[in-house]
Amino acid sequence: MTKYKDLNVPHRTIMTPGPVEVDPRVLRAMATPILGQFDPAFTNIMNETMEMLRSLFQTENKWAYPIDGTSRSGIEAVLCSIITPGDRVLVPIFGRFGYLLTEICQRYGAEVTTLEAPWGEVFDPEVIINKIHEVSPKIVAIVHAETSTGCMQPLKEIGEACRNADVLLIVDAVASIGGVDLKVDELKLDAVIGGTQKCLSIPSGLAPITYNHRIEEILLKRKSIELGLRSFQSEPSNDRIISNYFDLAQLQDYWSPVRLNHHTEATSMQYALREGLRIVLEEGLENRFARHKLNERALVAGIKAMGLHLFGDEKHKLPVVTCIEVPNGIDSDEVRSMLLEDFEIEIASSFGPLHGKIWRIGTMGYSSRKKNILHVLAALEATLIRKGFNVNKGESVQAAMNVYDENKQQQNIETVVIGS
Amino acid sequence: MTKYKDLNVPHRTIMTPGPVEVDPRVLRAMATPILGQFDPAFTNIMNETMEMLRSLFQTENKWAYPIDGTSRSGIEAVLCSIITPGDRVLVPIFGRFGYLLTEICQRYGAEVTTLEAPWGEVFDPEVIINKIHEVSPKIVAIVHAETSTGCMQPLKEIGEACRNADVLLIVDAVASIGGVDLKVDELKLDAVIGGTQKCLSIPSGLAPITYNHRIEEILLKRKSIELGLRSFQSEPSNDRIISNYFDLAQLQDYWSPVRLNHHTEATSMQYALREGLRIVLEEGLENRFARHKLNERALVAGIKAMGLHLFGDEKHKLPVVTCIEVPNGIDSDEVRSMLLEDFEIEIASSFGPLHGKIWRIGTMGYSSRKKNILHVLAALEATLIRKGFNVNKGESVQAAMNVYDENKQQQNIETVVIGS
Repeated sequence: MTKYKDLNVPHRTIMTPGPVEVDPRVLRAMATPILGQFDPAFTNIMNETMEMLRSLFQTENKWAYPIDGTSRSGIEAVLCSIITPGDRVLVPIFGRFGYLLTEICQRYGAEVTTLEAPWGEVFDPEVIINKIHEVSPKIVAIVHAETSTGCMQPLKEIGEACRNADVLLIVDAVASIGGVDLKVDELKLDAVIGGTQKCLSIPSGLAPITYNHRIEEILLKRKSIELGLRSFQSEPSNDRIISNYFDLAQLQDYWSPVRLNHHTEATSMQYALREGLRIVLEEGLENRFARHKLNERALVAGIKAMGLHLFGDEKHKLPVVTCIEVPNGIDSDEVRSMLLEDFEIEIASSFGPLHGKIWRIGTMGYSSRKKNILHVLAALEATLIRKGFNVNKGESVQAAMNVYDENKQQQNIETVVIGS
Repeated sequence: MTKYKDLNVPHRTIMTPGPVEVDPRVLRAMATPILGQFDPAFTNIMNETMEMLRSLFQTENKWAYPIDGTSRSGIEAVLCSIITPGDRVLVPIFGRFGYLLTEICQRYGAEVTTLEAPWGEVFDPEVIINKIHEVSPKIVAIVHAETSTGCMQPLKEIGEACRNADVLLIVDAVASIGGVDLKVDELKLDAVIGGTQKCLSIPSGLAPITYNHRIEEILLKRKSIELGLRSFQSEPSNDRIISNYFDLAQLQDYWSPVRLNHHTEATSMQYALREGLRIVLEEGLENRFARHKLNERALVAGIKAMGLHLFGDEKHKLPVVTCIEVPNGIDSDEVRSMLLEDFEIEIASSFGPLHGKIWRIGTMGYSSRKKNILHVLAALEATLIRKGFNVNKGESVQAAMNVYDENKQQQNIETVVIGS
């Protein structure tokens, strides 16, 4: 025997901007015995997953598959497969993850031009479009949903402008995919990276991506068959993608009927992704987005009724992350610790300039449930009272419940109208 | 509802050189609800995993943690974090995965010198040592266990020679770790990459690595804090690691008490790794290696008794992969298909020059069981008879059973001697 005990984890209510609670059906799927990577039963699962990812991304793209790594592996895979040293990239930054895009592009040798908006705001599309015309980048890389600030960047005009200027638009939709409407084709997004551990309620460990033929053309020019697999001594392209693991030109061969051996697909995570996507499609994208908005509305009503203030530009608020200003005199981390220890609820702080200044509550995927909203509001109220903050006692949960009641009435009216 | 049905996979006997069957305890662990990445309950699991990895690698190294990706992500992480363009790397190649090491090193700008041994053989350490003195590389990168040929390279003299010449020795032990004895410190290996989906019987998706202070010194010189996390505008090192996702200097901060945010750890895969390591340590490394050898002995006895021939240098045979020459007139893939369809057993072919020439049977981790050995021998015999090959009927399973019986008698004798 060893000193290591049976896995025995507390069952948390996870209300961070990811990772969030995993749907029990997804957990169960992961307990399924594995299959070999080239077993027809498994490649069939891979193909079904690709189909479902196309529905999730609302795209007709041929390529939609996961990278075997956490969300940022998907971002790096897309960027490093497209960027050649010296390429000009424009990155509009409105929070931490814009910096991450910048850093990855720079590491792969891009000449990055950044635009910065104050944290808590987004860009007027015109500002970005003017910069595109000024800089003439090969690529614009931008975050759709900034979890660090709870803001969401409108992409319609930017997509239009990029396509007209023959610029590639790469979008980090890690935090929004599956929780917020994002029509990849309609918005003219060339490549999009999603996340699993947020609105899809699948554990972290895969990064679903999609890209169109404009991206594929670049990949095919940079393609080389792996040493040890190619039967003759062909020279790799001069402009070979640096990473082997993230080489999308090789990965798409692995995900195509060619099934050219690359890595060994992460079987159990594939099972999880397939089941998670099935749940999304069963609920229906529109219903799912509406559910996320309803729970957000209830949460925001409760937060405000308590006497707290939202952080950031409410007009561009990300529906799945709610940022709250920490009141003067209250220690942000002490409140989070009490929530975790006494109520088994996890909420988040933020990064850099916002650390200790705001709380971030995620309402994503399976965590976006009425029960969780009411629980977190009641717990936050109790904790703040305990810490000496003068809340409007008892108002918060009532305000949230009113939102749910009104929603129910509204649905009843709609049903009557449809039925009459 | 969608057209996608409930996950319903066939339950295969997986006898490939990976991925292999996952221990049911590991599958069950993955169905555990997740935790936030900075939840103390989760960071405790991370710390326990590091401890157990040190035991697995038989090392006192401070750093032993998994990369969030499949095995080759671990290889790329180690190599790309150490290699600066222009560095000289020596790669002795004796199968497909030596080519992979070569390819990754070249992609990151190394000047690679290769040595090649015929597939099915390993190197006389002297040959490698002489080349080290001739080339004076910064790094020797070598595969320990080549699953493509079923051969295992002795490392003792090479480790000694590298240390004396102040060369870094990086070892791909993806296929051997947990199934074959590999004393990282005693052998003077500077960095080692293990695999989960082979002798650990955990699904693919994490790559455990370990490295010593010689490697860490290089990392610390190349370290930069991620843009968006650093509070002042410090310039990154001139010699910055290209990949962000694979930047070991950042990853070790994430795995240290500093817990500097990087990716979101793959929770469910962590649970799997912890449980898988616990099973390894409960069995005990020595017992585990002995079990793998016993099952290999039984398999080999059965294969030979059937009238088939092993491929490769038996003196350097990898105990967890058995390569068998496909007899003349037999279609390798037809046999594999019949095994899969009729007997639900998966065995493997090989790559490049060996494709269609050999079968590879893995006896790794949870798949290395008496039941599986007897099942695969009986099924292979029946299939070969069906395909018209003249086997020694009925001999194979008997030969394997004899090995198990002799082993039991031997154990009984030892028990009596100890008890007397």
